[in-house]
Formats: sequence, structure tokens, C-alpha cells
Amino acid sequence: MKKEPSGNIFSDRISDVPRSFIRDILKLTADKSIISFAGGMPNRDLFPVKELGAAASKLFARSGKDILQYSTSEGYWELREWIAHRYKSVKGIGITPENVLITSGSQQGLDLLGKTFLDEGDGVIIEEPGYLGAIQAFSVYKSLFHPARVDMDGIDLERLKQALSDYPVKLYYAVPDFQNPSGISYCEENRRQAATLLEGRDTMLVEDDPYGELRFRGEAKSSFYKLIPGNTVLLGSFSKIVAPSFRIGWLVAAGEVMEKLVIAKQASDLHTNYIGQRIIYQYLKDNGIDSHIEKIRAAYGRQRDAMIAAMEAHFPAEVRYTRPEGGMFLWVTLPEGLPAMDVFKQSIGQKVAFVPGDPFYVNKKDVNTMRLNYSCVDEDTVHTGIKRLGGVLKKMISALQ
Amino acid sequence: MKKEPSGNIFSDRISDVPRSFIRDILKLTADKSIISFAGGMPNRDLFPVKELGAAASKLFARSGKDILQYSTSEGYWELREWIAHRYKSVKGIGITPENVLITSGSQQGLDLLGKTFLDEGDGVIIEEPGYLGAIQAFSVYKSLFHPARVDMDGIDLERLKQALSDYPVKLYYAVPDFQNPSGISYCEENRRQAATLLEGRDTMLVEDDPYGELRFRGEAKSSFYKLIPGNTVLLGSFSKIVAPSFRIGWLVAAGEVMEKLVIAKQASDLHTNYIGQRIIYQYLKDNGIDSHIEKIRAAYGRQRDAMIAAMEAHFPAEVRYTRPEGGMFLWVTLPEGLPAMDVFKQSIGQKVAFVPGDPFYVNKKDVNTMRLNYSCVDEDTVHTGIKRLGGVLKKMISALQ
Repeated sequence: MKKEPSGNIFSDRISDVPRSFIRDILKLTADKSIISFAGGMPNRDLFPVKELGAAASKLFARSGKDILQYSTSEGYWELREWIAHRYKSVKGIGITPENVLITSGSQQGLDLLGKTFLDEGDGVIIEEPGYLGAIQAFSVYKSLFHPARVDMDGIDLERLKQALSDYPVKLYYAVPDFQNPSGISYCEENRRQAATLLEGRDTMLVEDDPYGELRFRGEAKSSFYKLIPGNTVLLGSFSKIVAPSFRIGWLVAAGEVMEKLVIAKQASDLHTNYIGQRIIYQYLKDNGIDSHIEKIRAAYGRQRDAMIAAMEAHFPAEVRYTRPEGGMFLWVTLPEGLPAMDVFKQSIGQKVAFVPGDPFYVNKKDVNTMRLNYSCVDEDTVHTGIKRLGGVLKKMISALQ
Repeated sequence: MKKEPSGNIFSDRISDVPRSFIRDILKLTADKSIISFAGGMPNRDLFPVKELGAAASKLFARSGKDILQYSTSEGYWELREWIAHRYKSVKGIGITPENVLITSGSQQGLDLLGKTFLDEGDGVIIEEPGYLGAIQAFSVYKSLFHPARVDMDGIDLERLKQALSDYPVKLYYAVPDFQNPSGISYCEENRRQAATLLEGRDTMLVEDDPYGELRFRGEAKSSFYKLIPGNTVLLGSFSKIVAPSFRIGWLVAAGEVMEKLVIAKQASDLHTNYIGQRIIYQYLKDNGIDSHIEKIRAAYGRQRDAMIAAMEAHFPAEVRYTRPEGGMFLWVTLPEGLPAMDVFKQSIGQKVAFVPGDPFYVNKKDVNTMRLNYSCVDEDTVHTGIKRLGGVLKKMISALQ
């Protein structure tokens, strides 16, 4: 053997894709003595283990051969039916199973959208701060990002309007409910105005909705798929309401968009793991999902309340934060000139972890924002961790002045 | 609501990806009275249903929460260890678990390689006939295909040499054992010469090996990964030796190639479904795999023998075919001027289906070749189907003269 290839054999695209900074932070937090607000996982104590196990046993006993063979690219029909029916009953969205494509988690939905829509240099409007997984997925297709700020009301409509008129924009990626990383939800008026700006344009809104079912207060808002179905692809997932290890998500689309997405799906992995689709469907059929979701909502609501209460008690007054009505995250803004990365270095010494805001921006560094997760920590631990973090912040903010 | 976007909003790439012609044929064969040699599936009667069910039950009972959470992009460590160990014991290939990346089926391995290596217009050497799934996967990245014929000995070495010197070639996609669609295996000398041509170049050989364990006669040949590890990425899968519905495959690579592939994997679907990885590993741990593989080999060997015997008895002398030593397919060459597509139309009237060769070529149509699958049909059915197909061929060939 001579040697490995010496030149740069790799595609241009792969060097542009950011590594998951969060995964690197999570390695730091493997230390069990660290209180971690850094993760983005659902609470494992709430997984319906017994019910999923019973569903699996039943399937292996009754339909073993059927659940083990190759299946269709679009996904298991009964599961697609269930999803279509739930949209109807929960959100008043009228779709058929043909509008549902099962994906290998929502992350694959993003990859399929990149494959289907993005040529090099095509514009993508991304929220600022925005979901890291979407930035990674679209970077693969060498898109050009146009960040638009989200604040308490939702997307910056002026910026949205300007980006839509100044650039050729193929996709606008949005998480309108309990956004990752900020916990912000677009208010009803903000949605309607954004919908009006998009309607009839050659721009697709990607409405990513992994957390929508996890509302613990306030009223549900209109889905973009209901407002402008012709301009929207809607993404959903069982990861946060059942369990993530199955990697079962879905896309809702229609007509030619769906046809192209199915071709992209075939080329990507033939079909989503069928055994997981069958187990989840059996679980849903035998148990329903509403009382289980209610349990998750209640727990996350309590943990969120505990976090806000502890922040009110222990954070310096200069520090601001969002007050999410659902989901798993809240967003902290520090005084100008205090990089969250510096806070992270001090905080980890006090055995508290979080994610500094940096990876959620496409073109900013050393930002003064950070993401806190409350889904995986009980109320006492939340209190202890926030108190310690408050101590770090107090010291660092006094030193600024 | 006004209307859907009117312009062509789709990426250039997605219109270049061939639809799965085979899936369209399979729809035709849903009719149970049709004898189908068209499929590409493993025999469902051989799935280890009971053992997989027991593995799933044990996992849910003992480690329910652990098997339901998010996991690592690289895959379940114990499964990667098992795979590394099996390469050592079966093929004498010395790799570590770090060299193994779990993928959502081998098809995803191809997509990740496209993401990692291919810019628009980059050359890909593809076997002629070649695997349709690879043609689809690489088409997404707008590669330029350079077909190189395979015959009884393996790849056309002259053509390989010429393509490597005439074009910038990033990947050479090969199925050296029991190729899909032809059933051909590269002989030892052919592998060694191909390896010499590749060694030290900036071209990666993609050695796709889903069938390698399914040898029912003859001697195992050297893996390219053993001959030229620095120039090879090796793909494997549990689909043909355990069951396809889990969508669990893997890539073997090293160094910077592996680093880039992991980034591509993260962006594509975060990680492969973890529950499936755990069930398969538990199954392997509790049962071993050798006696199960032996059962598959014996069955497919019998069915292949029945098919060859029936072809010898019922096919006109002008028709040639391969005699595979393993795998699931054989390849039929008709006399010049007789398109397999025409035969298909007659044959389906006689309730026998197969796949005409057309989709396995990147730049040929109305070819006189066809793929027959023997993994899913018992010996009596093979005989009946081949006899009918022989009748069709006799008539059409006489009409030619």
C-alpha cells in the first residue's frame, strides 16, 4: 500500500457545514456532578416504556414477518392516517394521509427540503437566533442565509419583507411555537402578517413544529399551514411526545412538492425504519396520546416555573429572559459586553452548564445570549443550578462596571 | 389564499434524479397471482422473528428508558464493536469500532458519500449494469457518471484505467460480490489489478457489500478494504442477514474521511434509529449469527440452483445468463434486437414479472438484458415461472428470425 489520497478530495460543501458545537458541550457535561441546562432532550422519566414495550411484544407475536420487511418510501399508511386525523382534530387542518411523508426524524425533513429546493447560493431566511440543526442541514446545500431577528412577538416583519424583496429566497425556516433556542412563540398578528408577505411568492415557509403539542399555558395560535398551505411545508415529530430513539418525524406537503420530496427520500435512505413506525402506531392505537402529552406538559410547566422563579430570585436585574408558554427552552440576554462564552467558562467551574448563544447565529460571535433547557431537571435541581449561575452572573456583571 | 408558487422553485438536482422504476414495476406485481422475480427483498420466511421479539422484550423490560432517548451520531458503541470484530474474524480486516459509522441503511451510506465527496460535475465511475440506488443517490449531487462494464471476471480494467486517467474521478462505486443487478463477482485477479490502478490516487472506491455473507458456493475473495484501505470506503448492512425494516447499515472508513462523514451524518438525520440498533445488537449477542446466515445461504443456493436448472430446461439456447455464487440475483442477456421491455410486456400477460435492464444503465435504453431475483420464490414456483418465461422467450426469439 502506498498512501491515502493526498489532494483535497472532499466536496466544497462539507467544509462549510458547522460541527455540532452543542454535542461538544454535551461531552463536557458527561460529568454527573454537573447540573446541565445544556441538553435538548425530552425527560427520560416520562417515556411510556411499559406501553411501548407492550406494543412491541404484541407486534412481534402477531405480525412478526410483516414488521421486518422493506416498506414504502412514503411511510406506513396507518401512521400517516393517524397524523392526518390528529391535525384535523387538534388544529383544524384538513389534510389527507397522502400529504404526509414519514421521515427519519425532523432533521431528515430539513435535509430533504435542502435536496428538493436549494441550489448553490439560493437564499434561506433563518431566524436569529435560529435552530442549529437547520443551519447545518441547509449549509450542506450551500445556501445563502439571511437572518431575521425574532423577539417577543415573533419574526421581525420589516426585515422579512426586505429580505423577500432584496434576494431570491427559496425557503424561510421558522419555528413559530416555543422556538429552539429562544422559547419564543409568534403571536397571532405576527403570523398573519408574515403569511400575507409570503402568500403567492416562490418562497416556501418551512414550519418546524416539534414542540407545538407541549403548550402548558396560553392559547394555541394558527399554524402557517392553515393560513398559507400553498406556501408551507409543515414538519412534525414523535421525538418530544413519545420518544426520540425511533427517529420518526414527518413532513406535510402537497402536489408537486410532495412528489419531489418522495424522490429525495428514496435517494436518501429508501424509507424510514418500519419497525419503529409500527411500534409507535401500535402504541398510539392502544393507548391514545392525550393523557400522556398532558403529563409531559404538566411536568415541563412546573420545571419552567421553577426556573423562572429561581431566576427572579437569583439573577441580577440587568439580565433579561424569555417566559415561554411551552416547549423545553428559555433564552437569556446578558448585559452588552458580557460574552456568554466567558460566563460558560466560569459557570462550568461551579458545575453548571448551558449553551452559549454563539452556535444559533450564522454570522455573529461572542454574543451575550444563552440557552437554558428545563425539560430534564427536576425543580430542586433547577433551583440549585440557577442559584449558582446567578452567583457567577452577579460577580461578572459587577466586574463589568 | 391566492395560489401555490408558480415559478420553478425546485433545485436543479431534484429534476435529475431518476424515479425508482423498480418501485413502479413492483406496484404491477401486487397482484398475488403473478410470479415475481422482480423484487429485491430478502425472503421473509427466514426472518428470525422469535429471536428478535425476545431481544426487544428483554430490552424493554431491562433498559426501557435507555433505549428510548437520543443517541450519538456515530452509532451504538457495542454494535460498532461487534461489526469491527466480525470483519476481523470473517475477512481478516483489522479495524476498530472508531472506523464504523452506523447508517440508516446502506442507501444512506451512499447519500453521505455523495454529500462528503461530490461537487457538481465530479466524476463517478459506475458499473454497467449498476445498482440503481447508487445512481439515484449520486445523481442528487449532480455527478457525472462514467460507466465501466462488468463481465464474468469483474470490472473492465481497460475502461477503468482510461476513465481514471481521462477524467477527474472522485468515486468508483463497486459491488464486487454478487452484484446487484448481475450476480457477478469480481475474480481475485481482477480485484488486485483494479486495486493497483486505484492505489494512491485521489479516487475513493466505494465497496458496497450487502450480499458478501450470502455465498453459497466458491471461495471468498479479498475485500478492497483489505487491499487498499486508504482508497476504500466499505459499506455493509443487516438488511440481508437479519431484517431490512430496521434500516441499519454501516460505513467503514478512517481518519479525515470518517470525520467528514460524521458531520454529514449529523446534518442528515442526527443519528440512526437507536432502538433498532439496540434490538439488533441484543439479537446478535444472544443468538450469534452464523447458523442463521447458514440457513439463508442454503435456501438461496437451492432457489438459485432451481432457477438455473429451469433455465437450462426451458430457455432458448440463444439466451445467456450469469451463474452467481451467492446473493439474490442473476442476469439474463437476450439476443441482440430483443428489448427486455418488450419481453416484460408479454411476460406480464403470462403472469411472470422481472426487471428489464434499463434502469441499471445511466445512458442506455431498450436494452436486451434483465434481472431475475430468486430469494423470494420457492423451488416449485421458480420452475413454473421460468417455464412460462421460457415460453414467451421462445416465441419472441423465433419471431425475430
